[in-house]
Amino acid sequence: MEKKLIYLDNAATTRTAPEVVEEMLPYFTERFGNPSSIYGFAAANKEEITKRREIIAGVLGAKTDEIYFTAGGSESDNWALKATAEAYGKNGGHIITSKIEHHAILHTCEYLEKVRGYEVTYLDVDENGNVSPEDVEAAIRPDTVLISIMFANNEIGTIQPIKEIGAIAKKHNILFHTDAVQAFGQVPINVDEMGIDMLSASGHKLNGPKGIGFLYIRKGVKIRSFVHGGAQERKRRAGTENVPGIIGLGKAAELAAASMEDRMKRESELRDYMIQRISAEIPYCRLNGDPVKRLPNNVNFSFQFVEGESLLIMLDMKGICASSGSACTSGSLDPSHVLLAIGLPHEIAHGSLRMTLGADTTKEDVDYVVDCLKDIVQNLRNMSPLYEDFVKKQAKEK
Amino acid sequence: MEKKLIYLDNAATTRTAPEVVEEMLPYFTERFGNPSSIYGFAAANKEEITKRREIIAGVLGAKTDEIYFTAGGSESDNWALKATAEAYGKNGGHIITSKIEHHAILHTCEYLEKVRGYEVTYLDVDENGNVSPEDVEAAIRPDTVLISIMFANNEIGTIQPIKEIGAIAKKHNILFHTDAVQAFGQVPINVDEMGIDMLSASGHKLNGPKGIGFLYIRKGVKIRSFVHGGAQERKRRAGTENVPGIIGLGKAAELAAASMEDRMKRESELRDYMIQRISAEIPYCRLNGDPVKRLPNNVNFSFQFVEGESLLIMLDMKGICASSGSACTSGSLDPSHVLLAIGLPHEIAHGSLRMTLGADTTKEDVDYVVDCLKDIVQNLRNMSPLYEDFVKKQAKEK
Repeated sequence: MEKKLIYLDNAATTRTAPEVVEEMLPYFTERFGNPSSIYGFAAANKEEITKRREIIAGVLGAKTDEIYFTAGGSESDNWALKATAEAYGKNGGHIITSKIEHHAILHTCEYLEKVRGYEVTYLDVDENGNVSPEDVEAAIRPDTVLISIMFANNEIGTIQPIKEIGAIAKKHNILFHTDAVQAFGQVPINVDEMGIDMLSASGHKLNGPKGIGFLYIRKGVKIRSFVHGGAQERKRRAGTENVPGIIGLGKAAELAAASMEDRMKRESELRDYMIQRISAEIPYCRLNGDPVKRLPNNVNFSFQFVEGESLLIMLDMKGICASSGSACTSGSLDPSHVLLAIGLPHEIAHGSLRMTLGADTTKEDVDYVVDCLKDIVQNLRNMSPLYEDFVKKQAKEK
Repeated sequence: MEKKLIYLDNAATTRTAPEVVEEMLPYFTERFGNPSSIYGFAAANKEEITKRREIIAGVLGAKTDEIYFTAGGSESDNWALKATAEAYGKNGGHIITSKIEHHAILHTCEYLEKVRGYEVTYLDVDENGNVSPEDVEAAIRPDTVLISIMFANNEIGTIQPIKEIGAIAKKHNILFHTDAVQAFGQVPINVDEMGIDMLSASGHKLNGPKGIGFLYIRKGVKIRSFVHGGAQERKRRAGTENVPGIIGLGKAAELAAASMEDRMKRESELRDYMIQRISAEIPYCRLNGDPVKRLPNNVNFSFQFVEGESLLIMLDMKGICASSGSACTSGSLDPSHVLLAIGLPHEIAHGSLRMTLGADTTKEDVDYVVDCLKDIVQNLRNMSPLYEDFVKKQAKEK
């Protein structure tokens, strides 16, 4: 009997939808031409790319030629920050971001500070991971060139007050970038209504392929290239276009937009059911992230006296795929910078569990996972000397 | 009846081999896990990536962990140049390159000059596009941090004296990078024997997928990140790994290495046959690039009194896919910088034709193309007032 796999790590990556793969396939072996070539067979791919640009622009309320394809979210983030810094803050300048951004933002900011002489303000967040628009406004300086605040957090799912921050950026005539890698295709985004000047997204977070993403750049923003070379992407991003990837991302965006309303309703109901069961049935746990302003598919808990990695290994043995924080940092033994920023002590920031639902997650899956989790947490606690001390101490107090 | 398509633009891009696509496919919909995740289903992809790294390293005589996956040749070139400049020439420094490099090198050098304060020497080439190792050595300065000379030119196919340049770089203790996008998988490369410290390559030039490439970085080279963020690629290149792309590139490299000897023999024979027929049967033409030190599949001619674009359009009507110079610059109306560098006058640099053969090109294809080409060139010349004047002048002289 094949082991059942319950995949609850859709924030790390998603299964490429079969319809997406099907649409990509001809572009590998048949319609493989270089879109920059002059002959019809290849030049047709240029039009196909434009059609996908149009689909994505439509999802964001943007114009077609404001979408620039990249190799993924990290490249988009690097591009937005480095090129803006260069175009607007030639001899140094100031950037405002938050302490809970993805490392593609944080490490890029550190690079800009250390190597390029820019200054960066890393805003605190509240205990639910919310950035305060007032804090953003208070941090603005005369030399501020960019505000970059993520749309939704990849670990704890908190959705930021993007519209309010966008309005502040506009009022002060400062560019506003948002890393929407976790949000694009999951929740409604309108770049005009929200005052977004640049937005990063990635294909593989919305059942599209890996290795493709885009950066939305509002018309009029002075932007430099990040990858220099050929004249692709209107001379803004060099390199032969990843045609199958672009076709796949277009299809994924189309599917995500069409199903968004239903998915949001379905996933947020399942999410809340899971949160409610865990909160009620497993003692000494804490929900991380905002309980309301939250990605529809994100569940993140810390369990006192439990080490995150052991939890994941035990879940894996039950066929459950989950994560502790972000996949991008799994090489590191440091506790999550996001959990530290929301005020969790080191020992608890190590013990968090993120479960991110998908369109195919069922209530039965959730019940099975919570049942397993109850047992696993209890078993791990039974092996923990800290938990033993805690229980003894409690018994004494009674 | 379906129109026959003769694809002679393999330097622009290649058809992804069906075996390559087949090997990629499971990684979209089944083995789609994020290689950084801890559970077995996804973590297995990390090992699969390592296996492909090993294959590629084997083709180059490199060590497995000297291969870093990127989104393609342009990113690899940008990375090699920008990160080396930062690591070795903190407050400015000097780079040596040639006038016939790909724009991913040239435009990156221009950026380093204009924005980052580095100095760049652009070496001349001879009339066949050869860089002289003596010129390289003569250009070295105390502050030279990098020599970057392409392995083989993308337009005219000239193969550079890489081993000699590598030896000079080593002698002077300067890093040596080569853009091998056109050479990897086509001709033998050994990074140790050739003294190469960094090497850029791209998947879609060797019947692999688009959107994937790699940078070889010799152990011991101090390299900074170009894309900052997560801990992927041993913290050197952030972003979720393009797993299907890496699998595809690995397979393509394996197939290319296995067939290289046969392909080189077969393609260079066909190439020389084509060159000989064109030279003999079409008057007022010039072979561009070195007649001997040349990529096995590259044919590049200039035809006096003929405009390149018209030629391509007429060939397209006959089902023949070819190009004038590089696909990456087709958006531009400037004459090829490569053809200008080998001394062609502006009006002739506009009229060149590049035909790059593939493993499936046959002698019949070549004969058909040359027959078509003869007619087309003659027809275009008959419409050219310049040609008319030239003929009249010749008649007078007789």
